[in-house]
Amino acid sequence: MAQGISVTVWNEYRHEKTDARVAAIYPQGMHEAIAGHLRTQDDMDVRTATLDEPEHGLSDEVLGGTDVMTWWGHVAHKEVQDAVVDKVHRRVLEGMGLIVLHSGHFSKVFRRLMGTTCQLKWREAGEREVLWVTRPGHPIVQGIDDHFVIPQVEMYGEHFDIPEPDETVLISSFSGGEVFRSGVTFRRGAGKVFYFRPGHETYPIYHQKEVLKVIANAVRWAAPTGAMTIECPNKPMGWFEKEPR
Amino acid sequence: MAQGISVTVWNEYRHEKTDARVAAIYPQGMHEAIAGHLRTQDDMDVRTATLDEPEHGLSDEVLGGTDVMTWWGHVAHKEVQDAVVDKVHRRVLEGMGLIVLHSGHFSKVFRRLMGTTCQLKWREAGEREVLWVTRPGHPIVQGIDDHFVIPQVEMYGEHFDIPEPDETVLISSFSGGEVFRSGVTFRRGAGKVFYFRPGHETYPIYHQKEVLKVIANAVRWAAPTGAMTIECPNKPMGWFEKEPR
Amino acid sequence: MAQGISVTVWNEYRHEKTDARVAAIYPQGMHEAIAGHLRTQDDMDVRTATLDEPEHGLSDEVLGGTDVMTWWGHVAHKEVQDAVVDKVHRRVLEGMGLIVLHSGHFSKVFRRLMGTTCQLKWREAGEREVLWVTRPGHPIVQGIDDHFVIPQVEMYGEHFDIPEPDETVLISSFSGGEVFRSGVTFRRGAGKVFYFRPGHETYPIYHQKEVLKVIANAVRWAAPTGAMTIECPNKPMGWFEKEPR
Amino acid sequence: MAQGISVTVWNEYRHEKTDARVAAIYPQGMHEAIAGHLRTQDDMDVRTATLDEPEHGLSDEVLGGTDVMTWWGHVAHKEVQDAVVDKVHRRVLEGMGLIVLHSGHFSKVFRRLMGTTCQLKWREAGEREVLWVTRPGHPIVQGIDDHFVIPQVEMYGEHFDIPEPDETVLISSFSGGEVFRSGVTFRRGAGKVFYFRPGHETYPIYHQKEVLKVIANAVRWAAPTGAMTIECPNKPMGWFEKEPR
Repeated sequence: MAQGISVTVWNEYRHEKTDARVAAIYPQGMHEAIAGHLRTQDDMDVRTATLDEPEHGLSDEVLGGTDVMTWWGHVAHKEVQDAVVDKVHRRVLEGMGLIVLHSGHFSKVFRRLMGTTCQLKWREAGEREVLWVTRPGHPIVQGIDDHFVIPQVEMYGEHFDIPEPDETVLISSFSGGEVFRSGVTFRRGAGKVFYFRPGHETYPIYHQKEVLKVIANAVRWAAPTGAMTIECPNKPMGWFEKEPR
Repeated sequence: MAQGISVTVWNEYRHEKTDARVAAIYPQGMHEAIAGHLRTQDDMDVRTATLDEPEHGLSDEVLGGTDVMTWWGHVAHKEVQDAVVDKVHRRVLEGMGLIVLHSGHFSKVFRRLMGTTCQLKWREAGEREVLWVTRPGHPIVQGIDDHFVIPQVEMYGEHFDIPEPDETVLISSFSGGEVFRSGVTFRRGAGKVFYFRPGHETYPIYHQKEVLKVIANAVRWAAPTGAMTIECPNKPMGWFEKEPR
Repeated sequence: MAQGISVTVWNEYRHEKTDARVAAIYPQGMHEAIAGHLRTQDDMDVRTATLDEPEHGLSDEVLGGTDVMTWWGHVAHKEVQDAVVDKVHRRVLEGMGLIVLHSGHFSKVFRRLMGTTCQLKWREAGEREVLWVTRPGHPIVQGIDDHFVIPQVEMYGEHFDIPEPDETVLISSFSGGEVFRSGVTFRRGAGKVFYFRPGHETYPIYHQKEVLKVIANAVRWAAPTGAMTIECPNKPMGWFEKEPR
Repeated sequence: MAQGISVTVWNEYRHEKTDARVAAIYPQGMHEAIAGHLRTQDDMDVRTATLDEPEHGLSDEVLGGTDVMTWWGHVAHKEVQDAVVDKVHRRVLEGMGLIVLHSGHFSKVFRRLMGTTCQLKWREAGEREVLWVTRPGHPIVQGIDDHFVIPQVEMYGEHFDIPEPDETVLISSFSGGEVFRSGVTFRRGAGKVFYFRPGHETYPIYHQKEVLKVIANAVRWAAPTGAMTIECPNKPMGWFEKEPR
């Protein structure tokens, strides 16, 4: 598996330990539902990490060896240490892919990458969500037709305060009439960032096949294809003409 | 009024002459409904032009004197002469603003500016449309809160085959569950282009105040702020150093 | 002047007080060179603020009353208090325009808005810079032909680590052969951001007419056309159908 | 090789047959210089096609079987039949990748995809070009450091009249002082488009290793990851709820 994409599935992992309804749906945590699917993919090498581990499970060794990270958080965004956020942010700029899931829109690292509030409207009413493909042919929606439906969800509604995305891949409608840009891509430094709306602690969304397919697609899309060095070099006149070719 | 924005409201103007239902809603044509509102704006100088006029009402003099054009067509896109399309296209690149309305998504000039099919899903079922603001503060939605509702519309659904917009300002949901990017901007050459979905021959949509407000806002947004010359100059070494400053 | 655009020209104002060469070029500070030009514009109401004033001259009253801010900093980015950065950042998201000048690329507020390192290559060798217009007709380059020249500058070279700009308006070449995206726009929340490369403490760049013209144009372009409220509202089903129209 | 990317290298192939200087550099045509390199790549299955073949070498069978096409034209853009342009354009929208080289900026198919004039400044003076990477980590510049140099080129200068690119990957400077966006990407329909400036009939640019590397990288980047169907379907209410999952 040395050639596979090295994926770290990060989860806050709190709801699952304190709320029986959540534990019933995700007995080993949402991270294991996601990681379990990714482990079935031949080209991925998957580990998990959670908030309550030392360094939130994100040691320099883990971070340095991660090609793509997925991030789920909700009630404990503030407990994520700034030093870890700094490192994750830096790794994205250097080239690591980052897939931010659902309530991760308010995570420190996503807000730092966006530079905006990432605020939105919301409602918990068990609505039906239809996700419509707005970029057919995009690798993130490979194997998805023109839409898919999630039977029961928490609603997120526009305005979603993000910079204009590089690509808008999926837009949702909800039973209640709101809309949301549910699959959007950004590049920051050499790293690719994908925000993907689906998920919630009290619905079995990370057991749904289309949702897992999009996450696996997004991991492949976000895998590094090069790197960026963090520096700010002073370059003398003619430096690039003196180099060997 | 010499200082005003010179607006030409173009309409195919066929449904209104052949369908009594349409004539009842727009007795003087959809162009007059739109132009009538724009004429109430102090900073605009408004004329209309229609398909069955000579040169479709778009002589060189009219085109040369137009700052912003609005375009509505539906059943007779093919009757628009290519020579006129060439001229409108060229004027946009030179700096003229263009606001393309509803079924104008299939007009020759919009498809030429986009380079794509501009196809979409559609349904005539008198659905409710909610248009959500996705760029608060944008001049095109000045005076609009975070959404507005049109009670009965023809549905347009994604995938809307356009290039990734420069800005997505409005996204719609429909009673039937589809979504659509209903207000999107593009720059082509020095010209600004705004596609705005609302409108239809059998609904009084161009009598609704929010729709008219957005169109008036868009006219101001699309007004030229400079020009582009169409040329492909051969420039000798050092040409720009010999110019007077 | 109550109707004018309220501009606050912010300057670190350190080089001018400690370096005689700088003081000779900008005896009252770079801020006064910029503000002096903006004060000649009929539609602007101009004040200045500097680092060593209380709250860096950016009290809540000043910030709340500012439509567009320009920002120059270099050696003392770290001395800008985080609490002030938070407020400036928030005001941009709410709708205030921000024009970041030259070495302001490394300011706290610009890096926070971008989410990237904002790093670049650099060299101080008194090179000639040619700034080429890449979006003719854009309001920021109104009155500029297709290029302008600055005789002596510090070089900034790509890669400039910023997100893909919404619009690339100016690209520079330097005598030494490097290139740089010198005029780029971004929207963050309801606020418009323009990064403009020209400037330096040891060259009289803020006395050059094309540079001042671009700054004045950018102030007009960045002036608010609406606002965004910072909130994250929980909305019950059907809330938008119960509102009066 | 059934699994490889199917590449069609298209060349106008006129200069090489009429100008001894060109024939000396490209004895079998520029297409063979490019195709020869791509044939060394294990993951590509390469054919060529030229203007003077029947249907310009682009039969329905060839087009239908092409994943990525490269396009070089210069003196005979007008001789390319509109019927063939229609088909190539359609194939791009359906998902075929297209890499447009150098003077191909004025080809019918590129102008149709862009919707703009694609005009630029130019000069034949054998200048040095430096191409700077503006998106480190992008797959198109994999294996390229932060720049590369082409010793002698025809200059192309801004303003390059294209829509705002999805991504600006390379920007050039020239000895004469001009700049140019030399590597830019666009998505149209399901197809990826890359414009790459290097090339010319009288310089051995398609023998230079960095240029060939970028072309090979771009072929991989542009390979289809899905498709778009050309249609405009009328969809009844509830159609997507009645489908089997």
